[in-house]
Amino acid sequence: MDSINIKQLAERLNLSTSTVSRAFRGHSDINKETKEKILAMARELNYQPNHMASNLRDKKSHTIAVIVPEIANNFFSRAINGIEKVARANGYHVLIYLTNDDFEKEVAFISELHNGRVDGIIMSATGEAHDHTHMRRFRNKGIPLVFFDRMYDDFPTSRIETNDYESSFSATRHLIDQGCRNLAYLVVNKNLSIGKMRMQGYKDAIEDAGLRADPRCIIDCSNDLNKNLQLLGRAFQDLKPDGVFASVERLAIASYYTCNKLDIRIGEDLKIICFSSLEIAPLLSPALSTITQPAYDMGVAAANSLFRLLDLAEGERHSFEHHILASELLLRESTLGRQES
Amino acid sequence: MDSINIKQLAERLNLSTSTVSRAFRGHSDINKETKEKILAMARELNYQPNHMASNLRDKKSHTIAVIVPEIANNFFSRAINGIEKVARANGYHVLIYLTNDDFEKEVAFISELHNGRVDGIIMSATGEAHDHTHMRRFRNKGIPLVFFDRMYDDFPTSRIETNDYESSFSATRHLIDQGCRNLAYLVVNKNLSIGKMRMQGYKDAIEDAGLRADPRCIIDCSNDLNKNLQLLGRAFQDLKPDGVFASVERLAIASYYTCNKLDIRIGEDLKIICFSSLEIAPLLSPALSTITQPAYDMGVAAANSLFRLLDLAEGERHSFEHHILASELLLRESTLGRQES
Repeated sequence: MDSINIKQLAERLNLSTSTVSRAFRGHSDINKETKEKILAMARELNYQPNHMASNLRDKKSHTIAVIVPEIANNFFSRAINGIEKVARANGYHVLIYLTNDDFEKEVAFISELHNGRVDGIIMSATGEAHDHTHMRRFRNKGIPLVFFDRMYDDFPTSRIETNDYESSFSATRHLIDQGCRNLAYLVVNKNLSIGKMRMQGYKDAIEDAGLRADPRCIIDCSNDLNKNLQLLGRAFQDLKPDGVFASVERLAIASYYTCNKLDIRIGEDLKIICFSSLEIAPLLSPALSTITQPAYDMGVAAANSLFRLLDLAEGERHSFEHHILASELLLRESTLGRQES
Repeated sequence: MDSINIKQLAERLNLSTSTVSRAFRGHSDINKETKEKILAMARELNYQPNHMASNLRDKKSHTIAVIVPEIANNFFSRAINGIEKVARANGYHVLIYLTNDDFEKEVAFISELHNGRVDGIIMSATGEAHDHTHMRRFRNKGIPLVFFDRMYDDFPTSRIETNDYESSFSATRHLIDQGCRNLAYLVVNKNLSIGKMRMQGYKDAIEDAGLRADPRCIIDCSNDLNKNLQLLGRAFQDLKPDGVFASVERLAIASYYTCNKLDIRIGEDLKIICFSSLEIAPLLSPALSTITQPAYDMGVAAANSLFRLLDLAEGERHSFEHHILASELLLRESTLGRQES
């Protein structure tokens, strides 16, 4: 009887695994009688969960960490609002860590998250191109982690993403339909998996239309506005693109400033579309066409996935979820041209 | 000798209070010999600090809480970046709590922040209009708190703010100089002190110019875009303002949408200026005139103030700082009119 697990315990009690798990976690939605019945049976069957014991003594932090590259970004701030809502409903605090796209920071955070500081983690990864030893070490700590938006393919866990490839393909196809033949692709970190998926959608749509993708038109930018303005100033003059697909919002913004400086008419001489959660995209001059991810819903989905993992005993957290939420193509003047009113 | 305090202890050691305090807090910049000298003297003089003892055993959380109304707002996300930078440099985590402008949430957060969860708090307050009993109860916990941007005047502590009255006066004066005579003031919560300061600047500038402030032109809006669109749609048609001073960014955005719907030419028929940290204000159609607070610097100042308080012994935290940082008036097409290129 030494090796009885939570499933067997639940079967003996005629209860669901989730109910038993929640009872051990001290959830208030399990009534007192049921809790006592579970504890009595657990004692009877010599059920000795590793970490459940500490949960019984309520050593949980009731805090989840959210690790994101930045919050001065509409996608992440909206996703965090979604996470926060679910966490609050579960009686949890949200601890937000900003990596500022610095991989060393991510490694430091992941290394610090132990000793009961947090019960679970929701993360948008920073260092796809780097070695992921820190994640392998982290796995042994038994803290569940859910990825959203940016993830490491070599770390098995639940993940929430959008249909990046398909929406990038559609956005590029839209530029081609609008007459663009020389399409630039702007990216911050070529090596991040999410950038790769978006870039592949761009490349495939060009090929699919019988056009040739010019490798020089894939422009590797940075997070620094001034550097991007210099880079794009040169690129727009040298390569003379008639379409720009910006993989992140800030590169579309840099493109706007560059076009204004070079007297390039956006929507006419150069059509621009980008991934963006900018609420005021319709108010830009001209209104910006966007691929808009369901940021808030992604946050909600990531938090729900994490709480489902937390409801399982540590040894039972094997079945991971993979949700793909669809982005929306919102076409406006920057690709359709100025609409005279 | 029972009542010896940290100042007396420091004097006997010929060290600064701050050094002694930092030694008790386990700061790495105090060398081992000095630390041991301090501890020996403390024992000799029977120095019995209340909470210092626990610091010696390193029970500090090395975490600060940042309580803000929202993060999907450029002002707060930039301020948090400033706080985060200082916290990181001090080896501290930042725990971000969102109240979503819900006073009950603020009360709940403040009540939960004890038992070593956080060492200090930086807060932008939500409920100026409410009873502040929760703050008085909180004071007994001995956790230092610093206000930034939105604060309770009846809670004595360090505070970081901007010159809201002066910049509101200047912005209103600018609208009048541009020919506006019927100026609307848009506010979310009339009763919040920061709103009052801004409103007073608006009122005084109008009076100063020999104009009459129409009370109906002070429009109390909400955080809900759709409700604001309805409200402003009616107000713009009924009151026909020729100038709008929006006390927060989202009300300027709602004004833009309303003008577009009603075919009111922004910058010509109606001039708009607002408090905003929006990076892309120059890219709006038309470019938006803003009063821009030094959000990042305010975050840095708030965090530095908090760490100075943390460096003092609990009983010594009496001298509070009050920093007023200046906002910048950035004039663009929405008040200057369209600039033909």
